[in-house]
Amino acid sequence: MSAAPGSKGKVLLAYSGGLDTSCILVWLIEQGYEVLAYMANVGQEEDFEAAREKALKVGASKVFIEDLRRELVEELVIPTIQANAVYETVYLLGTSVARPVIARSQVAIAKREGCTHVSHGCTGKGNDQVRFELAYYALDPKLQVIAPWRIPEFYHRFPGRNALLAYAAEKNVPVSQTPSKPWSTDENLFHISYEAGILEDPNVTPPKDMWKLTVDPEDAPNTPERITIEFKAGKPVRVTNEADGTDVSDALDLFLYLNTVARRNGVGRIDIVENRFIGIKSRGCYETPGGTVLRAAHIDLEGLVLDREVRAYRDEHITPVFGKILYNGLYFSPEGDLITKMVPLTQANVNGSVRVKLYKGTLSVEGRWSDSETLYDMEQSSMDVQGDFEPTDSDGFIKIQSIRLKKWGATIQQQQKKY
Amino acid sequence: MSAAPGSKGKVLLAYSGGLDTSCILVWLIEQGYEVLAYMANVGQEEDFEAAREKALKVGASKVFIEDLRRELVEELVIPTIQANAVYETVYLLGTSVARPVIARSQVAIAKREGCTHVSHGCTGKGNDQVRFELAYYALDPKLQVIAPWRIPEFYHRFPGRNALLAYAAEKNVPVSQTPSKPWSTDENLFHISYEAGILEDPNVTPPKDMWKLTVDPEDAPNTPERITIEFKAGKPVRVTNEADGTDVSDALDLFLYLNTVARRNGVGRIDIVENRFIGIKSRGCYETPGGTVLRAAHIDLEGLVLDREVRAYRDEHITPVFGKILYNGLYFSPEGDLITKMVPLTQANVNGSVRVKLYKGTLSVEGRWSDSETLYDMEQSSMDVQGDFEPTDSDGFIKIQSIRLKKWGATIQQQQKKY
Amino acid sequence: MSAAPGSKGKVLLAYSGGLDTSCILVWLIEQGYEVLAYMANVGQEEDFEAAREKALKVGASKVFIEDLRRELVEELVIPTIQANAVYETVYLLGTSVARPVIARSQVAIAKREGCTHVSHGCTGKGNDQVRFELAYYALDPKLQVIAPWRIPEFYHRFPGRNALLAYAAEKNVPVSQTPSKPWSTDENLFHISYEAGILEDPNVTPPKDMWKLTVDPEDAPNTPERITIEFKAGKPVRVTNEADGTDVSDALDLFLYLNTVARRNGVGRIDIVENRFIGIKSRGCYETPGGTVLRAAHIDLEGLVLDREVRAYRDEHITPVFGKILYNGLYFSPEGDLITKMVPLTQANVNGSVRVKLYKGTLSVEGRWSDSETLYDMEQSSMDVQGDFEPTDSDGFIKIQSIRLKKWGATIQQQQKKY
Amino acid sequence: MSAAPGSKGKVLLAYSGGLDTSCILVWLIEQGYEVLAYMANVGQEEDFEAAREKALKVGASKVFIEDLRRELVEELVIPTIQANAVYETVYLLGTSVARPVIARSQVAIAKREGCTHVSHGCTGKGNDQVRFELAYYALDPKLQVIAPWRIPEFYHRFPGRNALLAYAAEKNVPVSQTPSKPWSTDENLFHISYEAGILEDPNVTPPKDMWKLTVDPEDAPNTPERITIEFKAGKPVRVTNEADGTDVSDALDLFLYLNTVARRNGVGRIDIVENRFIGIKSRGCYETPGGTVLRAAHIDLEGLVLDREVRAYRDEHITPVFGKILYNGLYFSPEGDLITKMVPLTQANVNGSVRVKLYKGTLSVEGRWSDSETLYDMEQSSMDVQGDFEPTDSDGFIKIQSIRLKKWGATIQQQQKKY
Repeated sequence: MSAAPGSKGKVLLAYSGGLDTSCILVWLIEQGYEVLAYMANVGQEEDFEAAREKALKVGASKVFIEDLRRELVEELVIPTIQANAVYETVYLLGTSVARPVIARSQVAIAKREGCTHVSHGCTGKGNDQVRFELAYYALDPKLQVIAPWRIPEFYHRFPGRNALLAYAAEKNVPVSQTPSKPWSTDENLFHISYEAGILEDPNVTPPKDMWKLTVDPEDAPNTPERITIEFKAGKPVRVTNEADGTDVSDALDLFLYLNTVARRNGVGRIDIVENRFIGIKSRGCYETPGGTVLRAAHIDLEGLVLDREVRAYRDEHITPVFGKILYNGLYFSPEGDLITKMVPLTQANVNGSVRVKLYKGTLSVEGRWSDSETLYDMEQSSMDVQGDFEPTDSDGFIKIQSIRLKKWGATIQQQQKKY
Repeated sequence: MSAAPGSKGKVLLAYSGGLDTSCILVWLIEQGYEVLAYMANVGQEEDFEAAREKALKVGASKVFIEDLRRELVEELVIPTIQANAVYETVYLLGTSVARPVIARSQVAIAKREGCTHVSHGCTGKGNDQVRFELAYYALDPKLQVIAPWRIPEFYHRFPGRNALLAYAAEKNVPVSQTPSKPWSTDENLFHISYEAGILEDPNVTPPKDMWKLTVDPEDAPNTPERITIEFKAGKPVRVTNEADGTDVSDALDLFLYLNTVARRNGVGRIDIVENRFIGIKSRGCYETPGGTVLRAAHIDLEGLVLDREVRAYRDEHITPVFGKILYNGLYFSPEGDLITKMVPLTQANVNGSVRVKLYKGTLSVEGRWSDSETLYDMEQSSMDVQGDFEPTDSDGFIKIQSIRLKKWGATIQQQQKKY
Repeated sequence: MSAAPGSKGKVLLAYSGGLDTSCILVWLIEQGYEVLAYMANVGQEEDFEAAREKALKVGASKVFIEDLRRELVEELVIPTIQANAVYETVYLLGTSVARPVIARSQVAIAKREGCTHVSHGCTGKGNDQVRFELAYYALDPKLQVIAPWRIPEFYHRFPGRNALLAYAAEKNVPVSQTPSKPWSTDENLFHISYEAGILEDPNVTPPKDMWKLTVDPEDAPNTPERITIEFKAGKPVRVTNEADGTDVSDALDLFLYLNTVARRNGVGRIDIVENRFIGIKSRGCYETPGGTVLRAAHIDLEGLVLDREVRAYRDEHITPVFGKILYNGLYFSPEGDLITKMVPLTQANVNGSVRVKLYKGTLSVEGRWSDSETLYDMEQSSMDVQGDFEPTDSDGFIKIQSIRLKKWGATIQQQQKKY
Repeated sequence: MSAAPGSKGKVLLAYSGGLDTSCILVWLIEQGYEVLAYMANVGQEEDFEAAREKALKVGASKVFIEDLRRELVEELVIPTIQANAVYETVYLLGTSVARPVIARSQVAIAKREGCTHVSHGCTGKGNDQVRFELAYYALDPKLQVIAPWRIPEFYHRFPGRNALLAYAAEKNVPVSQTPSKPWSTDENLFHISYEAGILEDPNVTPPKDMWKLTVDPEDAPNTPERITIEFKAGKPVRVTNEADGTDVSDALDLFLYLNTVARRNGVGRIDIVENRFIGIKSRGCYETPGGTVLRAAHIDLEGLVLDREVRAYRDEHITPVFGKILYNGLYFSPEGDLITKMVPLTQANVNGSVRVKLYKGTLSVEGRWSDSETLYDMEQSSMDVQGDFEPTDSDGFIKIQSIRLKKWGATIQQQQKKY
């Protein structure tokens, strides 16, 4: 399983089938490596078999295509939903969640196949180089990483697309005839991202035909669609749609069904400027159809069933930290390990169902209930029923709270300060 | 200005013109107080003059109607937007923001008029009793508060609406002929809330005719509407709508215009279960039309102009704290004072404009720009242009970040743990 | 097991043997209750048998004396040390940690004995009333609490010590002949507190003879004493003292030995002003001999073995929260439950030994090592050895970190601002 | 003012007079630069004039010696004390606080003298390279930095001390005859650090003669010394010592006097393992005599005068963040700018005096008072005096707090869970 004689060693290249990684594949062979191609199926639209053939044609000694969709949903997407994790208030971390499963699978195959190196086609300005490499290093500290877009002899040789095309022509690398879009994308079953190209001007409105996953809200059906999502311990366990009789409970199927419903109703688009890990600001557009619905439903249910202080603790001390860990590629790290163990501790009581309406890009919760949880108490909540509540207690509650406020107010008055 | 001879003193009652506070007014007189009625115009739909007459008719010695709309917008709503403050992820604090201006104005008038007491009609289970009273005590530690709904002889005498109606009849208190709605509301120019009554079952979908401020998304126009909001130091300073030639820059006018646009496009509804300060869970439905738009635009602009770490600091250390302070009625407190002084420190660079599209309940940002801020750098951000960026630097960045991860990864491997 | 006929029910009174709770015991009987006396042995200096006799003499129908020392150490003290929990930077929570075990044991006996009520002698201004009662209510929501010092007919009848003495004389309650100290104390094996009386003036230096647990540093031995503390998973598992051959490993014995060593060397005194839960400022003096040593050693070891980000997470998100939960009596609460489950997740690698020197009130760490943990790497740390470290990597690390700083610096320069 | 013809430009080198920076000075000239030497007087023990002569002798075209002691105390040390800033619970940031003033002064001179480059002698593994360079880049984004210990041709040429000595001999660089210590130090008026060499083994106890600033506690006087420190707005404004009649109020003098007292009483030593910014663990010993006293007194006074919630906010949201910013060299950054503006907002009421006793390494507060602040209220605090406090209020306070705990407790019971 060791590399061919004379070789600098075996490299497992994260391969996409596109122009960049095809040229990298050839270039690595040129540098004296044996190259094995690695592709992850994380739910993106892709002709994997065509990519396999292309990899072999341009010189890969082996090709691995791994279906990681289930582990992506079960190990990354669902914990992200449980934690309500988000980056900078609005970004649902669609690219970030896929990186750990891809890197872990790539490292495992590299180990099995005796590769001393792994490689990828990420640029030197983005987040993904960091996410992949920090994961590689944490998972196998001895692995060597080849990042051609950060190697001067590579990036000086290929200053732009034309240089790559010329190289491809010279090396007989097949090139797709589809004209390239004026932006780049990254897709998985959780989301698709659009960035670069014409989007670099943050005031350019994305063209209508850019959005790929979701229908334009204006073109969505004129009647709302309603579904019910059931959670157990904060995990979605069942989605039903009475109108069409849908009833799914497998984690992957359920997630794909949520995608379908959200896509056709135009739910899940955002357009933002974010701060990359390396400190550069960047504009991105994202579609996260099913994830947007799931997140909203989960947050809603927590209102019904989570204790106030547990919710507040999670919101302040887990949600933003987990978001940052995922965004910065630190899922495989001591802190990533810690936080992923903390999330389930907050979710034991997140049991119940949420009724959601989707309509032309809007998403609204129409009701929720829980059969097992009892923190919400209709009678206690009622303004009409007194229950076992003694209104005079509130008197003492307020009076005691006011002790330090009165002291402070008196000080202010005395010092003739003004609000 | 002292109370009439034989009186227990003067009470300034927060008066709404409704059945409850009218009966409280009469009851206070019955208890031996001189009662002055106080009404705050915070933008709610109300016939203030009718209420004035009613107060006088039932025995108020004076009536004060204060227009607090501008200070509500300038001192509370805008700082809330600047801080992106929110309670429990989703509630925009619409009721909370009005309480401080109302309490402050009521205390000022009480002081001026020589009142020894203030009173209100809040129940003993809600947040508003706490918000009003903590503000009263902080602003004037010597004021006495009369909260009839927490006084046993009052609440035992009036166990329900019928007892109040009987008392009103007995005392010649005019009663509105409009049948009361099966929920209660609180309205100001920022929002309206609906709670109690049929809404106490969290799985009951609110009836279509409950929503008062916003058009049902399904009934909203079939074509989107587009506006541009300009911010200076995080404050909205101008809203334009090219389609109809609108161009407003006064803070109050601008906010009211945003309400108009958001209302007609069905933007700003939520339906949630929240945790009250006193620890009871409660279901509430809210409409916050203009505020929803303003908040989204402000968050978007910050992506373009705020430094990453300043944004993160604010998000983690100011946003949730300010939200909790407002919700719990602690605006007038040492910590409220501190946090409101901190907010502007984070907003100096929040200068620029955001283009927003509204359509059938959806709200989307279509672009943003800033003439003065330069942290976003199109060239630096670009994946095509190298600028003064040296890709090899990322190598060192990643390698140094990986030092502790490799140590940890090696430990894990050695201990034969598994991810 | 139900109360005697004619009785208002059985009350389990937290009894100390002192004047207050003896009078309360008699008063409760006078009110028509059957009273059972409950005493917790949490390591305080106390003649439990004398107290038992006294309780029976003044009318208790039963007396329970529970030895809670081991559970106090194992369930409360050690987790507190693991979390480095502290309140307001300096207070080691010595009173707070004892309350949960006492309340839990009292509730368990109340349940077993068919008591419908529990009672205590805490005043209405302090923290302990809150700590006990919140624990009672969480552990058994149906229990009724009798807090005489908050019942007007009790506290008006006994406005001061003399009234209690007169009542004691009238009711044949034996009274200790020892003159009472001009401060009050609370003691357990973790600490002793002094407050009230002459200490209420925060500028009064406590008299030398107040301090009971520790020798005055000036009177401590003139030669240092050295011990070694070994931790496993953040828990102390062995203490050795080569000088005198001590070698203890039982959790309780080990803790008591640390107390002995710290006491004779004058370690563990503080004198502070703190903020009580109810919002009143209060001055307290505390001695926490063994706890002070254990905490310092634990913090030191974490420097050697804990990952930086795990340590930072714990320091920012667990340590202060746990401290506040303990101080405010919320150990038995949803958030207390959550945080106590989180603590051990951070301690898996806290394995190793710390060498500590004690001398006349000072406490210093002289060295530490770990046989199992490897994050500290002498070669990597070395300024002389390069190891597998490439100095040029730091170049990229710094350059990338500087991207956003340069942008910001340029903006500042351009706007002619000044630092 | 431009560089000499044929020169690669002018470099302003941070020069210490030692072997390393003297060799760097010569080497930079060898590389074709004109070198100006920069020395900062931050209170370290140093023969500045001898160093000046040496710099000129080995080829510096100019030498600058800047007295930064006052700005170090006023702009960095005091705000650090105000914020109670600390890194990893115990490190008082002694090295970190000096870096911003040094870097700022060096950048200002570089600008004035037309230097295109700055240089320093920091190694590639430490924190100081990062602290200096991030400050340089933020203060003047166009400055070029030369860090010889990260340039392969430099560090390969000088792999150890012997190579530097040989180079010094060859280039006639005078070398100190004092044998070098088996550790390295960094000193300023706030502290001295010891690291590397024999200290790299974290279990080696530092030799008694290593500690330079403070007397060994065992050799300190046998009688305690007492001083009083007065603060205004959180800043020390006066220190008095009745025993010897000292009374100082100038910020710099006052700080130097605190150093004197603390040094002779053996106060301020620590020995820790910390986590460097670049992720390597490192052992350091530190003496921070005056700073240790000042910090303890400041924390104590805050107990008396700061509102509970302001203190908690500062402790959780400012203290650790400021510590991390200083440690990581981000004082000149958007977040550093923000946090330094926040600190004074928390200190307005920190007015009063603290009485401190120093004795053989121990430091204890013996009393404190404030003439202007009134949050501490002896009567309110008193357990004997009722004041305007109504004990029944605590009833309501506790009952309301218990609402959600009872709900939770009932749930636990129902689910037959156990604590």
